[in-house]
Amino acid sequence: MSGRDFVENPNRGFIVPIGGAEEKYRDPAILREFVERCGGKKARIAIIPTASRLEETGRKYVELFEELGVREATNLPFKTRQDCDRDDWLKVLRNADGVFLTGGNQLKLSTTLGGTKVGRTLRERNAAGMHIAGTSAGAAYLSEHMIAYGDEGSSPRADMVQMAPGLGLTNTVLVDQHFRQRDRLGRLLTALAYNPFAIGVGLDEDTAAFISPEDTLEVVGTGAITIVDPSQLSYSSMDSAKRHDPVCLINVRLHILIGGGRFNTQTRIATAPEEARQRR
Amino acid sequence: MSGRDFVENPNRGFIVPIGGAEEKYRDPAILREFVERCGGKKARIAIIPTASRLEETGRKYVELFEELGVREATNLPFKTRQDCDRDDWLKVLRNADGVFLTGGNQLKLSTTLGGTKVGRTLRERNAAGMHIAGTSAGAAYLSEHMIAYGDEGSSPRADMVQMAPGLGLTNTVLVDQHFRQRDRLGRLLTALAYNPFAIGVGLDEDTAAFISPEDTLEVVGTGAITIVDPSQLSYSSMDSAKRHDPVCLINVRLHILIGGGRFNTQTRIATAPEEARQRR
Repeated sequence: MSGRDFVENPNRGFIVPIGGAEEKYRDPAILREFVERCGGKKARIAIIPTASRLEETGRKYVELFEELGVREATNLPFKTRQDCDRDDWLKVLRNADGVFLTGGNQLKLSTTLGGTKVGRTLRERNAAGMHIAGTSAGAAYLSEHMIAYGDEGSSPRADMVQMAPGLGLTNTVLVDQHFRQRDRLGRLLTALAYNPFAIGVGLDEDTAAFISPEDTLEVVGTGAITIVDPSQLSYSSMDSAKRHDPVCLINVRLHILIGGGRFNTQTRIATAPEEARQRR
Repeated sequence: MSGRDFVENPNRGFIVPIGGAEEKYRDPAILREFVERCGGKKARIAIIPTASRLEETGRKYVELFEELGVREATNLPFKTRQDCDRDDWLKVLRNADGVFLTGGNQLKLSTTLGGTKVGRTLRERNAAGMHIAGTSAGAAYLSEHMIAYGDEGSSPRADMVQMAPGLGLTNTVLVDQHFRQRDRLGRLLTALAYNPFAIGVGLDEDTAAFISPEDTLEVVGTGAITIVDPSQLSYSSMDSAKRHDPVCLINVRLHILIGGGRFNTQTRIATAPEEARQRR
């Protein structure tokens, strides 16, 4: 799928795509879990609100993380590619335990950060143990292959989805967000049909996949994660489908996971919450 | 799933659920194929427009079938349960080669025809070789277990779908229609999760499943059919899910079939259009 090698790296930090609209006040389970992974009270969190058009987005997350008791939460509002050379902000990134990418438009993230020191620093620091979470557009951007935009609808059609290179923390998963809220199975299937190498991860709102260094994904939040595993795909008509044609796919494996459920992206085995609890 | 036995019956007629909005004028491939199965120029077709609130629905289909060159097309507008005792209309049903149920509201079909001579005649005649097609609400109604209504969204949630007994031509499949147009994977998965005995058949608009007496399903039309096969389901949280909770499902098999594709509901093997052609 990609020319680069994504070798297993036990020192890597968590990769945490969130489906958008995560609960922020009443019971912010996902943000709290992220803070916990980053060291709790000792955690230094950097927020990158580049995807958002709203000035207040970054500051809002600074407040949220401060309320969760972190040691430091810093807003890094990279707006231009020139901003990505700012040494003071890069220093914050290098010292952070966790980075949080807000929602908005994933193409703002890829066009602003792509090929800059910020993109490189995020990849290097994640490989060295820093955790990176992103919500909505921020989630889409984390992987090597990102869904830029696409059409709604449950079944796949040729050309219904536009792919683009993402941040590249992993190429194992292909993420889609607001999954049940915006009816995105068709576009995720279409994206996977181009090359059934990756695993589709459809995130409902207020639902996160905590992907461990060992590439086990655990569900946190109130929604579901739809895992689309095309590894046993025996037929695809994607190569011959014309524009807007429906696409034929035979043998796609589906798992719907809820909070506590797990999926190992290497063995491709899904575990229900109860089973996962028993094995701990 | 059902107390009744649905034994294999090589004399049975075709069962043809259609996803709604089938093409009627330019290239009415589905209606033409149905007429062909019913005997072409010799075919006597009865139309049951009970699901529809519109007076003209039945007459419109009479015209459509006449344009396709059938010998006889008769509108049987059963409006009340009393209508279902009309001997003249029952006689038309008994002599028909095919019956077509229009769209509208499937609960109008089940509440009007359920437990009447019409329901019984349809089942008996289908078992003896008469073909029965239904579009939209008419498609939903064909099976033993019918989706009455439900919520939109890709991932399943407890209580998001309301089941009701249908006509009962088969209990092997559970049909949902307007599938990609109305985002119905979640409700189909929810319906199957109650009892993963049946196979989910999600029909896009202008797409039909021609289910043969041997229980092989063939796709006709311009959209896709999403086959949801839960036979290898290894875990479901449906029994413990509270209202509106997301539901965990592990190991659901999915096939997206397009025109010419096939699925054998007994062996549960899907065949792509090319493969199906080669085997003929």
